Amino acid sequence: MALIVHKYGGTSMGSTERIRNVARRVAKWVRAGHRLVVVPSAMSGETNRLLGLAKELAPEAATAASQRELDAIAATGEQVSVGLLALALQAQGVGAVSYAGWQVPIATDASYTKARISHIDDRRVRADLAAGKVVIITGFQGIDPDGNVTTLGRGGSDTSAVAVAAAMKADECLIYTDVDGVYTTDPRIVPEARRLHSISFEEMLEMASLGSKVLQIRSVEFAGKYRVPMRVLSSFTPWDIPIEEEARSGTLITFEEDEKMEQAIVSGIAFNRDEAKITVMGVPDKPGIAYQILGPVAEANIDVDVIIQNVSHDGRTDFSFTVHRNDYVRTVELLKSSVLPATGAAQVLGDPKICKVSIVGIGMRSHVGVASKMFRTLSEEGINIQMITTSEIKTSVVIDEKYMELAVRALHKAFDLDQNGAAV
Amino acid sequence: MALIVHKYGGTSMGSTERIRNVARRVAKWVRAGHRLVVVPSAMSGETNRLLGLAKELAPEAATAASQRELDAIAATGEQVSVGLLALALQAQGVGAVSYAGWQVPIATDASYTKARISHIDDRRVRADLAAGKVVIITGFQGIDPDGNVTTLGRGGSDTSAVAVAAAMKADECLIYTDVDGVYTTDPRIVPEARRLHSISFEEMLEMASLGSKVLQIRSVEFAGKYRVPMRVLSSFTPWDIPIEEEARSGTLITFEEDEKMEQAIVSGIAFNRDEAKITVMGVPDKPGIAYQILGPVAEANIDVDVIIQNVSHDGRTDFSFTVHRNDYVRTVELLKSSVLPATGAAQVLGDPKICKVSIVGIGMRSHVGVASKMFRTLSEEGINIQMITTSEIKTSVVIDEKYMELAVRALHKAFDLDQNGAAV
Repeated sequence: MALIVHKYGGTSMGSTERIRNVARRVAKWVRAGHRLVVVPSAMSGETNRLLGLAKELAPEAATAASQRELDAIAATGEQVSVGLLALALQAQGVGAVSYAGWQVPIATDASYTKARISHIDDRRVRADLAAGKVVIITGFQGIDPDGNVTTLGRGGSDTSAVAVAAAMKADECLIYTDVDGVYTTDPRIVPEARRLHSISFEEMLEMASLGSKVLQIRSVEFAGKYRVPMRVLSSFTPWDIPIEEEARSGTLITFEEDEKMEQAIVSGIAFNRDEAKITVMGVPDKPGIAYQILGPVAEANIDVDVIIQNVSHDGRTDFSFTVHRNDYVRTVELLKSSVLPATGAAQVLGDPKICKVSIVGIGMRSHVGVASKMFRTLSEEGINIQMITTSEIKTSVVIDEKYMELAVRALHKAFDLDQNGAAV
Repeated sequence: MALIVHKYGGTSMGSTERIRNVARRVAKWVRAGHRLVVVPSAMSGETNRLLGLAKELAPEAATAASQRELDAIAATGEQVSVGLLALALQAQGVGAVSYAGWQVPIATDASYTKARISHIDDRRVRADLAAGKVVIITGFQGIDPDGNVTTLGRGGSDTSAVAVAAAMKADECLIYTDVDGVYTTDPRIVPEARRLHSISFEEMLEMASLGSKVLQIRSVEFAGKYRVPMRVLSSFTPWDIPIEEEARSGTLITFEEDEKMEQAIVSGIAFNRDEAKITVMGVPDKPGIAYQILGPVAEANIDVDVIIQNVSHDGRTDFSFTVHRNDYVRTVELLKSSVLPATGAAQVLGDPKICKVSIVGIGMRSHVGVASKMFRTLSEEGINIQMITTSEIKTSVVIDEKYMELAVRALHKAFDLDQNGAAV
């Protein structure tokens, strides 16, 4: 008998019929002797509907007072779905009780629309579990120290589920979603992409931050911090498949680096075309220049990803970085108006049509030549590399956007992911 | 500068455009120097949509555990509308903050789907008002002593508004709705019906309990208990009509019996065709017979309205009462299966096609002959009276349903309501 947390996404909760199937699946786990906590998202489309209404009335809603209202409105989507799921379970003869984030409570800071969980009180939940009930908790939301409703940002229900699992010291957190696991890369780009049976927490963190949309990155960070065993699996398998089969399906995110995992040098290929490249040319190369350029950018609340500074010639250097494509125009204008005059740099160049392709693998730690194999593969395809950045378990390159599919397919093949690479 | 509570119904909150108009109207009151607390209903149709989803998953939902979930689900409708109204006010430059019932808190008992308000904590609301904000509070809901969300039943937002006005000792509680006040009778039946400029609290209580759907009866009881001045007025006047004109529009429910009010003998005609009549014939006339008949009915949770026991002949009497038409078949079956054998009564007769018509007026206290004028009027129209019941300020008759419109029109005319009766 284990304590298991299930998380269901909006698509899985998309209609009363689907909610009924979620209830049947949960009931199956209960009848197998497990204690269950379930964290569902809002019914698909509901959060957008609610925020759409809000936008009609307040297109800006930029003040803290307005964001407080947006959070209170958006949080109702999950409050409806937990109630509906509880009713569906009760109708099947399974004891169930639902809680909104404020009732648990799930304590957060007061950063409306992107709050962070600070503490979860598990007493109420434990008492219900001890009484044999399934406990259903809203994803995506909590309550701040002053009793205001907060939300965790898009995809926040993954984080809620992992946080609840951590607080309850659950045996496993199962993230049911509309894909059947984590793949070596996006199957829409590479048809030969295969599902990974397991992936290390660190690799998953890199995959998530590099653009794999399976899990919200904060949920992976949370899982890592509290060592919560986490599995991504499909909610579209028949609800009555044998529980042993279901429990082994999907992709396990693991903290144990076993023999098998070491065999895989590269586990997956991630990519991201949401970025844009900006280069400040001819910057006088003196101490503090990076801060002089990036300080104003950070102050304008623009996130910077890849940062490259080349060696200098004649006391001047070129400084390049990438930002989200939505921030491209704003960043270029900011640099031209304030950074160029202040630093005496020559000019600002930019290119919004770039993409970032990354190879990720914990095996890279102990294998040399992985990055050079990546560069050779791209070279053989005639793809020019514009920027390079590396970490212990990943290598990313920035290339022209038009080569993205070609690069991903070539790398997927070169690292043997098509057939028998990382899947174990 | 007065403290005013505004309540807006679901139709007034039915779209973002209508919510914007509510915000404009509230802003007008704020700019005139008043402090405002606003209690809106859910957007029209929303509560039905939510309960419809619940019903698909749990058609019965009869247990307390299920009703707890129904309340949590239904309460989200108002939680969305308070947030939207706060955003709309903020967008117009008016400081505003919204609270769900649990945040105020509005404390209730634990009777899910029909909870009663026990206490309202006004500290948070007062602090916001002192800071110059409009405070927007969800109607229809509260929180029980164990921290569960409760709802007050259909139309409960009227009660929420009056309860908030009572707790805040507001100067007036304005109920904005889709009619422009309380009428001498339903204008759909009698085109000559006129709006009353004022009506006494006791008359309003009778009108509400007799089928006038303008106000939820519990809100009137609450207003009476705490002597909250209450006004019913239209939310469909242009939002920018002069505030002095708006403040005098609609119908005032008053506690002061002034000279003018005494002049009106009958203020209004109420009617109700939701009832059915049941007669137990040939009941042995001995002490305790009413309890023997109505005890089992009450135990089956069936509400009884009019009760008549005729004088007995030869030791036997006929015992008649009315129930809601939905309970008619169940009540007849119950009487046949258990009451007939136990009492030795002869038979059970019933008629679901009846209606109740009532004249209401505080002037009846001091005027004799009002009831007999009613009976004479009906007699002149050839309408047979089946049952009669009276109180200090109303007389009700049960008649054949098919005569309802005729009876209401005839009485409306007979008591001079068409021209210059009660309106002051």
